[in-house]
Amino acid sequence: MKFKIGGTARDRYCTRVLFVALMIATAAAAPGARAQAWMPPPPEQRCPSQWGANDELGAANLQTPQIVLRATRMIREGQVYELGKVLDRFVPKAGARSFSLNSARTSLPNGRNQQRSNEETVFTELGQIGTQFDGLAHQALGPHLYNCIENDKVATRSGFTKLGVEKVGALFTRGVMLDIARLKGVEVLPANYEITVADMEEAMRRQRVDFGAGDTVLVRTGWGRHYAVDNALYLGPSPGIGIAAAEWLAQRNVMMVGADNCCVEIRPNPDKELALPVHGLMLVAHGLFLVENLELEAMSRDSVYEFAFILQPLKLKGATGSTVAPIAVR
Amino acid sequence: MKFKIGGTARDRYCTRVLFVALMIATAAAAPGARAQAWMPPPPEQRCPSQWGANDELGAANLQTPQIVLRATRMIREGQVYELGKVLDRFVPKAGARSFSLNSARTSLPNGRNQQRSNEETVFTELGQIGTQFDGLAHQALGPHLYNCIENDKVATRSGFTKLGVEKVGALFTRGVMLDIARLKGVEVLPANYEITVADMEEAMRRQRVDFGAGDTVLVRTGWGRHYAVDNALYLGPSPGIGIAAAEWLAQRNVMMVGADNCCVEIRPNPDKELALPVHGLMLVAHGLFLVENLELEAMSRDSVYEFAFILQPLKLKGATGSTVAPIAVR
Amino acid sequence: MKFKIGGTARDRYCTRVLFVALMIATAAAAPGARAQAWMPPPPEQRCPSQWGANDELGAANLQTPQIVLRATRMIREGQVYELGKVLDRFVPKAGARSFSLNSARTSLPNGRNQQRSNEETVFTELGQIGTQFDGLAHQALGPHLYNCIENDKVATRSGFTKLGVEKVGALFTRGVMLDIARLKGVEVLPANYEITVADMEEAMRRQRVDFGAGDTVLVRTGWGRHYAVDNALYLGPSPGIGIAAAEWLAQRNVMMVGADNCCVEIRPNPDKELALPVHGLMLVAHGLFLVENLELEAMSRDSVYEFAFILQPLKLKGATGSTVAPIAVR
Amino acid sequence: MKFKIGGTARDRYCTRVLFVALMIATAAAAPGARAQAWMPPPPEQRCPSQWGANDELGAANLQTPQIVLRATRMIREGQVYELGKVLDRFVPKAGARSFSLNSARTSLPNGRNQQRSNEETVFTELGQIGTQFDGLAHQALGPHLYNCIENDKVATRSGFTKLGVEKVGALFTRGVMLDIARLKGVEVLPANYEITVADMEEAMRRQRVDFGAGDTVLVRTGWGRHYAVDNALYLGPSPGIGIAAAEWLAQRNVMMVGADNCCVEIRPNPDKELALPVHGLMLVAHGLFLVENLELEAMSRDSVYEFAFILQPLKLKGATGSTVAPIAVR
Repeated sequence: MKFKIGGTARDRYCTRVLFVALMIATAAAAPGARAQAWMPPPPEQRCPSQWGANDELGAANLQTPQIVLRATRMIREGQVYELGKVLDRFVPKAGARSFSLNSARTSLPNGRNQQRSNEETVFTELGQIGTQFDGLAHQALGPHLYNCIENDKVATRSGFTKLGVEKVGALFTRGVMLDIARLKGVEVLPANYEITVADMEEAMRRQRVDFGAGDTVLVRTGWGRHYAVDNALYLGPSPGIGIAAAEWLAQRNVMMVGADNCCVEIRPNPDKELALPVHGLMLVAHGLFLVENLELEAMSRDSVYEFAFILQPLKLKGATGSTVAPIAVR
Repeated sequence: MKFKIGGTARDRYCTRVLFVALMIATAAAAPGARAQAWMPPPPEQRCPSQWGANDELGAANLQTPQIVLRATRMIREGQVYELGKVLDRFVPKAGARSFSLNSARTSLPNGRNQQRSNEETVFTELGQIGTQFDGLAHQALGPHLYNCIENDKVATRSGFTKLGVEKVGALFTRGVMLDIARLKGVEVLPANYEITVADMEEAMRRQRVDFGAGDTVLVRTGWGRHYAVDNALYLGPSPGIGIAAAEWLAQRNVMMVGADNCCVEIRPNPDKELALPVHGLMLVAHGLFLVENLELEAMSRDSVYEFAFILQPLKLKGATGSTVAPIAVR
Repeated sequence: MKFKIGGTARDRYCTRVLFVALMIATAAAAPGARAQAWMPPPPEQRCPSQWGANDELGAANLQTPQIVLRATRMIREGQVYELGKVLDRFVPKAGARSFSLNSARTSLPNGRNQQRSNEETVFTELGQIGTQFDGLAHQALGPHLYNCIENDKVATRSGFTKLGVEKVGALFTRGVMLDIARLKGVEVLPANYEITVADMEEAMRRQRVDFGAGDTVLVRTGWGRHYAVDNALYLGPSPGIGIAAAEWLAQRNVMMVGADNCCVEIRPNPDKELALPVHGLMLVAHGLFLVENLELEAMSRDSVYEFAFILQPLKLKGATGSTVAPIAVR
Repeated sequence: MKFKIGGTARDRYCTRVLFVALMIATAAAAPGARAQAWMPPPPEQRCPSQWGANDELGAANLQTPQIVLRATRMIREGQVYELGKVLDRFVPKAGARSFSLNSARTSLPNGRNQQRSNEETVFTELGQIGTQFDGLAHQALGPHLYNCIENDKVATRSGFTKLGVEKVGALFTRGVMLDIARLKGVEVLPANYEITVADMEEAMRRQRVDFGAGDTVLVRTGWGRHYAVDNALYLGPSPGIGIAAAEWLAQRNVMMVGADNCCVEIRPNPDKELALPVHGLMLVAHGLFLVENLELEAMSRDSVYEFAFILQPLKLKGATGSTVAPIAVR
């Protein structure tokens, strides 16, 4: 099941040299005609979704007892990997996002037992902060959310009346990690690196893993090493999967795709006229969830590529997502 | 494994009648000398904790690969029970607590793909709202948190420097539910009902379940039926475990105790001079976690008494707890 | 300047009886054809505003040194009336609004002088809570804010790029209070009472006050007595000015209209097909500000009808209004 | 009333050169024995305050009708100076403070008049952000707030039960600005410049202004030019009044002292063992208010040294201060 990528230090060095040379060559090449022409599937092709015109769950429909049992079979050693980052005011915050946690003493000593109590208030973009799960109200293509639900008809001041993350439920699936940084022999992929289908297929071959419908695929870019260390760098241009890789994953009907970067996808997209195209493709066109800002270093170090992946979105009514603390268990 | 409590409707009726009669008799009795004299263990008895003078994890030390494997063996059907309540502004809010979720449109249509984005701000007592996990910084006895850590030395404006909930990690244990409301033949236990050791032993016998070190014990009172239906009632006097039951659970070295009420314990305590004594006993004296406001109705209906219990506290740095959406899987 | 409305207790009783009788008669009458036909002025009539096509200030353009001097002349005794309500979590909160203030100790004793510091976080709808000033981004008629600025072009996630309340500046004008409750001989006007032009003219006559361009007009309904006492009642149907009175005030080119109720205007409007029509009329069509939830009892008790009115909106960038603590000085 | 400081450009140059030379000399001198020995007045000297043992108002007791009339006499031209800074997320934020304003659309088009409504949520340290008024619960010396009120007895989770800023009321006083930067011939005082009694006396002489009991004194350092331009610089070491100047102001029984810097006082204090000593001296020992982060450039440009100063703290119950938008009127 496990596979040591590369053999000797020299092998790894050669891999890295070749990769960097290739990056330079790639960067010089003009973006192809395909990328420039790409558009997300139009409404008539993506609606109704494969789960019916009234569906609000998207890929969560894949969550069945069989999927749970398939995931459970991955648990052989009982070892848990924490994939959530610590959440405090030093996490990367895109745009106007903020995070503020303030402790409160709620009681002075009470009763004969001198009981005291503490709690805290938190203000933040709770659906979209830290290690986060993107739900189906997070993204729209033009006027439409997933399943061609009209954004403006279901958006209220206090949350979405449809597609809220509270409907998803816990996700308990078999997970696979594709360690692309390791495949390329680097600690961190370059900021402009688009992960391709060929990369993923090569990683699967070398790691001897495969995946299918209902599985979770985690992609390691190494970019997570900048998280809370250099937030401006972390939130700037960063490596990730491209459109082709996203389409390939969607065809395989996975439940979620996660990564150790801010957005799963390469950012900005090499096609400068597209805005976060993988987000729209996955969430809106396919109803497929994304998990961002994952902590994948320990799994990489231990060469853990197959596991049970368990994620519990908060049941925030009408929210677009949830900060989470998912685990991988093997 | 499963056990149908009561046989016929008539049996159940008799159980209920007897129980109510007993309640009236009990309420009339004066509180005993023992209850009035009870005090939490003094510092010299409770510190250092069983896990050493520097420990900040408490019962999370029980979380080992063996405990994960023990829990995994409970998963036979792949059926998941969602034990978290939906979180919105209508949940019960004790004291000055609040919850406000406000949607935000973060972008107008961008790029050729007309990408739009939504998110939301949330303001709330995030460690202590909804279905919640109580961490070890939540309660103090006099000046001391768990392991005699001085509250005022580790409390900062932005969280606790020790015992923060981010240190706990995911909890993945075998779980047992003791359905006390069902045992007593009622839908909801009366507000002043203190669950005793005898009740728990009787439930174990009739449900044919047992539990041991590192397990999670969930106690069903039925009180959760008032949640978000009649919040004033829900947050008022309510049934729960008493001190004796809590001590008995702590002796068995369980990892967590959860319930479908606000506070796990009977509230107010029959000994009016004690303030939330089970909280201090469990969290401060024993380093044992509490889980509040659980949704247990579906498990009760299906007579699910043994399961894997999985709970992922948010990694809120320095926080006293976390809202959660735990699951039971069988 | 001052005028004792009514003479003896008996006079006041008669006034009240007549008024109540009239109310019953009025309630029985069908709403007239005029009310049903009323619509706010169409864009071509209201744009550009009297202050030009690029104006963002509305009635704040009336704030000139001459207006300040005119107001200053009202200050003869140096007596200050506080017209702002205390702001805490018990204030009336319409819809999903909330208010949470949480104290924080920001430092332990520092330095030789043992300096300690406290502050607090506040979460609330700061532009629209408590005694509040409504700015020009608060209301729209169809797609348009004041001066036919398109709402969706200037609304961002973090505030409005035009018409933000930070542009208004302090308002320092002559103020007049029309005490309609007193005129009618009641402590509080009935919930369904629409204040008419005739009421205002009668109050002016009996109080011997007049007003003109750039003045502030405060209207006392008595409804403020329910504020923070019975919030459900306070926020329910309530008396206030009607459309005709609003148009009459706008024609006189006043700067602001304030009242001791939630919305200045009668709510709901007698014409059930209109939603807060005075708001749109004043803010959108005329660029004229509203001040809500004022504390007017002390001024009524002292028969203070003319004064300098000073209001300092917070300079919240891009906000729709501001909680305020205005004063009247005579 | 007005006084042109310096005559020719050459005079001003000489002043500046002398000042800078003096600064270098001063910085070289060792701090004297006096500064090292200074301590705030002990409790027995400062309590009860001059306004009695039960007083919670401090210098707000000076606010009388006579003070209002004295201030009103300053208003001769009707010209208003806005002294509040615009409040948005780019303002300087000390420590863990934050500011987040999020717009909300609260209604879709309603009624025949197609009424729409906008508002916003704000999360911030509302008592201590932007241009701010420091109330008497903001600072403590050891265990004591103003008038030896024990901090821990009046601090609750939701505000202070005594000394809350809601009690202060609007302040309407004669104001005087001492333009120390201009006196020294610089645009901005150096970061380590302590404003002395001699500086203030010299400014009074050259500006031909005086002040007395109940007046407000504003001190211009020029430091405000860094506000929201270079926040790290702004919040770092900065010029301001020293202990001697503060004591001198307190002896003159002024109501408030404001400045165009973060803290009124020089920061850090030249005596490194003292933490914000002027804060404790003014707020705790003398019950005298501070106003920070004022916008004073326009008044300096226009040589406005005498005016009516009007400040309306929000009536935030139990708060330590209030963001404000005060004005000067001449």
